[in-house]
Amino acid sequence: MPGKLILVRHGQSVWNVENLFTGWHDVDLSDQGRKEAAQAGREILQENIAVDIAFTSVLKRAIRTLWLMLDGMDRMWIPVERSWRLNERHYGALQGLNKTQTVEKHGEAQVKIWRRSYDIPPPPLELSDARHPSHDVRYAHVDAAELPAAESLKDTLNRVLPYWHSRIAPELRAGRNVMVAAHGNSLRAMVKMLNNVSEKDIVELNIPTGVPLLYELDARLNPVSSRYLGDPAAIAAAAEAVKRQTEKK
Amino acid sequence: MPGKLILVRHGQSVWNVENLFTGWHDVDLSDQGRKEAAQAGREILQENIAVDIAFTSVLKRAIRTLWLMLDGMDRMWIPVERSWRLNERHYGALQGLNKTQTVEKHGEAQVKIWRRSYDIPPPPLELSDARHPSHDVRYAHVDAAELPAAESLKDTLNRVLPYWHSRIAPELRAGRNVMVAAHGNSLRAMVKMLNNVSEKDIVELNIPTGVPLLYELDARLNPVSSRYLGDPAAIAAAAEAVKRQTEKK
Repeated sequence: MPGKLILVRHGQSVWNVENLFTGWHDVDLSDQGRKEAAQAGREILQENIAVDIAFTSVLKRAIRTLWLMLDGMDRMWIPVERSWRLNERHYGALQGLNKTQTVEKHGEAQVKIWRRSYDIPPPPLELSDARHPSHDVRYAHVDAAELPAAESLKDTLNRVLPYWHSRIAPELRAGRNVMVAAHGNSLRAMVKMLNNVSEKDIVELNIPTGVPLLYELDARLNPVSSRYLGDPAAIAAAAEAVKRQTEKK
Repeated sequence: MPGKLILVRHGQSVWNVENLFTGWHDVDLSDQGRKEAAQAGREILQENIAVDIAFTSVLKRAIRTLWLMLDGMDRMWIPVERSWRLNERHYGALQGLNKTQTVEKHGEAQVKIWRRSYDIPPPPLELSDARHPSHDVRYAHVDAAELPAAESLKDTLNRVLPYWHSRIAPELRAGRNVMVAAHGNSLRAMVKMLNNVSEKDIVELNIPTGVPLLYELDARLNPVSSRYLGDPAAIAAAAEAVKRQTEKK
């Protein structure tokens, strides 16, 4: 029997509060985000799931979410692997811009295209731009040809899935319970593959923040069941909050 | 050129406060211990040393020390590897006992032998004892023949050094700056080897808690220099506090 899989989207960040495009910018969790993470750890503890190994991105809002969860689960000792491949979608030249201002400048229709199309990336960062990942030491070991300057959701999927196949799936097949603490779009990549979601539907799928999504899998790693852990009203509210953020003017 | 090496002993734990033999028992840092760890992170930041990879034990007082340091250094994204081989010396049947009571029961001379001899282990835990590591899931993957029921300092060295050679030394040789957040006796193992300390002297060597010990190494990983980072008075006070703990009645 393969292990269980738990996906967790990091809680609220300080840039979520300010309504800025974040992407690969390394902002921290807000106080509310920390509370969400601690609560997510308690939900897993209540389900009596013993997580054996965890994966996360190289961005601190995901890493801190993981740390708070491991602390709450009293499993700080399990192996943790970080990878840039689990990072949020790269938002290119939009990173650091206020979402409202971006809407004013480019029009809501264009912003919606960038945010909600499957394969249209936002404007890329110039290589000379200080925000380009080639200037960040944490990506020094990554092949320059693989480092994005902007990503569509499709691009994000294309760099997440090799990591799923090479690192995450083998752990599940070995019977280990796996937790992935990551970002809205890197998690969408996995949900799309696991649940066979269409390109059209995946862009509308909003994973709530700080609510563990538990998958039970068959031997071929196809989902037998999946459900969010925790209070149903809280889960619905979290999903609604994520959705509203996009629609805000 | 090989990378730099930083050794850090975890700060004060809640059992240090209560003066209990800890060993492999998984107690957390005290508030003071957390402050020590955060300060240790700031010392490394001030020295402008970019740590590339970190190693720690599977005990939360070392892991939390590492987390607080990585947070303070803004390098939460670097790879971290945990290993039982970096755990504190296993104190056998003394684990969980009050040091003062142990002295009253066995006599100060006997306790000093257990604590300060090089190759005499304390009384071992029975395999049936709930405290025996074979009952702890975090050691499930460790060969039963390798799991200690009690260790002398020599035993601790013998399980730390293979890890040094297989995992830590190759990173240094590859030019990466390495940090090890661990315990008094697992760090003694490395200091003994690096500085060629005699068996007689290593038992008297007290590494202060929460004070980074920086090594610069030559191509054969022999120390070119080593020094503690931070305020000299604080370092002397920390070393003295460690020493006093042993002498307490």
